[in-house]
Amino acid sequence: MITKTEVKYIQSLAHKKFREEEDTLVAEGVKMVDELLSDFPDQVKKIYATAEWLKYGRKIPKGISCIEVEQYELDKLTFLKQSNQVLALVHLPALKIPSPMGVLLILDQIQDPGNLGTLIRTCDWFGISGIVCSPDTADAFSPKVVQSTMGSIFRIPVLYTDLVPYLEKMKDMPVFGATLDGDSMENIPFSKPCCLVIGNESKGISSPVLAAVSQTVSIPRRGGAESLNAAVAAAILLSKITS
Amino acid sequence: MITKTEVKYIQSLAHKKFREEEDTLVAEGVKMVDELLSDFPDQVKKIYATAEWLKYGRKIPKGISCIEVEQYELDKLTFLKQSNQVLALVHLPALKIPSPMGVLLILDQIQDPGNLGTLIRTCDWFGISGIVCSPDTADAFSPKVVQSTMGSIFRIPVLYTDLVPYLEKMKDMPVFGATLDGDSMENIPFSKPCCLVIGNESKGISSPVLAAVSQTVSIPRRGGAESLNAAVAAAILLSKITS
Repeated sequence: MITKTEVKYIQSLAHKKFREEEDTLVAEGVKMVDELLSDFPDQVKKIYATAEWLKYGRKIPKGISCIEVEQYELDKLTFLKQSNQVLALVHLPALKIPSPMGVLLILDQIQDPGNLGTLIRTCDWFGISGIVCSPDTADAFSPKVVQSTMGSIFRIPVLYTDLVPYLEKMKDMPVFGATLDGDSMENIPFSKPCCLVIGNESKGISSPVLAAVSQTVSIPRRGGAESLNAAVAAAILLSKITS
Repeated sequence: MITKTEVKYIQSLAHKKFREEEDTLVAEGVKMVDELLSDFPDQVKKIYATAEWLKYGRKIPKGISCIEVEQYELDKLTFLKQSNQVLALVHLPALKIPSPMGVLLILDQIQDPGNLGTLIRTCDWFGISGIVCSPDTADAFSPKVVQSTMGSIFRIPVLYTDLVPYLEKMKDMPVFGATLDGDSMENIPFSKPCCLVIGNESKGISSPVLAAVSQTVSIPRRGGAESLNAAVAAAILLSKITS
């Protein structure tokens, strides 16, 4: 049983300001919440679950309150198209400063939450050191981003900061910038540590950030498309750089 | 000025059956419609546009009826989160049989329209011969897929058919299947022509299709994520195969 106040509270977590004030984000679905309880139990604050989820006798650490809800109640709370048995309130991951060793992904004004989530998940796959985002990149802790990271948001350090001063401090390592007319990635001898900059979905890398890039890089085009999706382009380049 | 009947007609184009009966799909936004008029003018049947779009004096071929609408009318028609000046009704691209030369992408039960659109766009970038989809893959002509292909849907042949008999006919070329435990892509000497099979977002390649694969292939994992997004995995493998 949930109260109107609880419904309103959870709905308010759609807003960045409220998430930060409350140090709380929403994570949903069987797979995601099971992974959280297994890998990051200290992050979980509260669980709302249907009898279906509860009947499998998950180990829920002491101190996490777990509330049984009806399906129609979960449907009121969910940020998904379709609710999936369980919703958790979770502490925000600390905004850590990524290690400048290895590969850093730099995001300049990525707008689409689905793209950002996919980027975080891809970085986790390739063992990237962390992600540095311009302040106007989508918020990594919004329900849609958290969901599309599939848990990776709790493993990959993400930092929001002004990119130009940040990149100026990185002057002793190569800063690659993905552009449509850059040098072909097939001809570049990538070395680590390095930074890879990915720009906005329609406008690409902004001029001041591009000026801080030491080498532009492109993915060879063999067909008719004008561009690649930003998350796809980043994934292809990260695969190449880490290979 | 649009009539209620027109609004209802366009809304019905959300449904596959109706799109096929009417031989019509919806494409939206300035960039998309401009590209259609420039590259595929014969495909366009009708245009609904605001004064803002019309004032730039686009060349609209004879025979395409172009109706000026108010912003609030376009807002009623749009399938986008936010309408963008113009919406076109377009003939369905012919469901061509892709050439078995070069690289063929085989999709087994891809469910997410955004993923499918991104896959089509990526295939267009890499000059892939075409895409063969299982009958239960998302429909390539739904508004969301069309929009996320960014125009590539008109350049890449897409075919829906039962995959097992189709792959049996392809027995004289290698059929690679992306799995989490396949051989590392770094150790495979890819050659063309070939097929690459990508499976469902959560379940992977189905057993009968997997049995028709001649070699499984994986992308080296260097971090903690359990899997990659299906469109991202396909893009990395297509980049490798076509390089």
